[in-house]
Amino acid sequence: MGRRTGSEGFAPLEEWPRTRLVPIQGRSTSLKLPAEDAGSMPSRTEYLVLKTERPREFVNITERVRKVVRASGVSEGLALVSSMHITAAIYVNDNESGLLNDIAAWADRLAPPGDYQHHRTGETNGDAHLKNLLLGHQVILPVTKGELDLGPWEQVFYAEFDGQRPKRVIVKVLGE
Amino acid sequence: MGRRTGSEGFAPLEEWPRTRLVPIQGRSTSLKLPAEDAGSMPSRTEYLVLKTERPREFVNITERVRKVVRASGVSEGLALVSSMHITAAIYVNDNESGLLNDIAAWADRLAPPGDYQHHRTGETNGDAHLKNLLLGHQVILPVTKGELDLGPWEQVFYAEFDGQRPKRVIVKVLGE
Amino acid sequence: MGRRTGSEGFAPLEEWPRTRLVPIQGRSTSLKLPAEDAGSMPSRTEYLVLKTERPREFVNITERVRKVVRASGVSEGLALVSSMHITAAIYVNDNESGLLNDIAAWADRLAPPGDYQHHRTGETNGDAHLKNLLLGHQVILPVTKGELDLGPWEQVFYAEFDGQRPKRVIVKVLGE
Repeated sequence: MGRRTGSEGFAPLEEWPRTRLVPIQGRSTSLKLPAEDAGSMPSRTEYLVLKTERPREFVNITERVRKVVRASGVSEGLALVSSMHITAAIYVNDNESGLLNDIAAWADRLAPPGDYQHHRTGETNGDAHLKNLLLGHQVILPVTKGELDLGPWEQVFYAEFDGQRPKRVIVKVLGE
Repeated sequence: MGRRTGSEGFAPLEEWPRTRLVPIQGRSTSLKLPAEDAGSMPSRTEYLVLKTERPREFVNITERVRKVVRASGVSEGLALVSSMHITAAIYVNDNESGLLNDIAAWADRLAPPGDYQHHRTGETNGDAHLKNLLLGHQVILPVTKGELDLGPWEQVFYAEFDGQRPKRVIVKVLGE
Repeated sequence: MGRRTGSEGFAPLEEWPRTRLVPIQGRSTSLKLPAEDAGSMPSRTEYLVLKTERPREFVNITERVRKVVRASGVSEGLALVSSMHITAAIYVNDNESGLLNDIAAWADRLAPPGDYQHHRTGETNGDAHLKNLLLGHQVILPVTKGELDLGPWEQVFYAEFDGQRPKRVIVKVLGE
């Protein structure tokens, strides 16, 4: 009995493989310093490229971020995960399918598809910009003892609101 | 004449000791490097444990965060304060009792208690997940000259929406 | 055909020079370490001072932040941009005039001017506090190869909701 939000809204759960991993191509730029620069702060930057099959889709990117953290060589630090596009969000919450539907319906209620001034430019994605602002476009994750330091239910999500084309998420790990 | 939000909502101010400090146990993990590692970046990580008396409660944790910053030895840096649970928020705003009531009523209006798909799992806290997303689950505070560098009215709040059990907030200070 | 939001709301686009740069005075505190401290992490802190002409105004501060990043000498790092006042927001989104109107109208719809408990203190800006929470009071921008590492449409905005007086935004760049 999924609550349908209409053709304008998100697909209900049974039709929407939200947590399926979409094809992601990671272009890595390793910026870790060589050993002779001991004392300098290691860092690593990677750009995850996501192209969702559907216009709107939630993707659990926790494992992708974890890999970047492990590759960084950072033991104690911070990992920024930030959407480079302004019609997608990055947030941390539970990976539970019912809740993902709830979040999608909630975002549609507070930032509904509609007639926005932005559409005078020819765009049709005004609501996606507002959903980006509602859910936030970035998170900072703590890195402790070389690992993402997350609570038991914390998962990192990429929430696409205007997809079906390649979009980038920057992951930058900084620390020592 | 507190505006009651009903038994589902937040208690009105006169019944709700929001800014009272709840028992907090801090488990500290000092990760400051020894002096012979000069040149490395100092950092410090502490986990604040909060157990609120009421299911929903706002707690001013500014002083607790300040103590971690001072203990870190970091002079210039950033302090991440992040909820490790996804039914509580961390935000910065004014410590004024009327405003705290306003924020609670506002969060209840935009993310009301109700019937969520998440509840099929047996949970009853769907609104708490959405309030976490609305208010945000983390802040980054600047550290300048060894102190939290906050504006005159900036206070750090832990906003509990599903409490009465121990929950953790990570504070990680990074800098030099 | 600007959609007017009433005298309580934002001025419509044609009356509202939102992206005009207001007089900004930057007080800089350079904290970059001297060369003999090689191995230490460079950082730079500046306080942008903004005084908007109108009570509510959006200001594109991307170029100001870019200057601080370049002056910092940081090659790989993070730049925190955070409002030191709790009635203004910092967010990243598109610099398109229709969208700026949409964001203003949306913030007014979800956090409307009205009668708040906070006003018992004599204040009249309850909605500005809620808009700060809705849009967020800070962003962290990645710095790569000495430059802000932003997506093609990402611009940094200061959203003033209670202006006409000097207010500060801290920019702190940390990295190596």
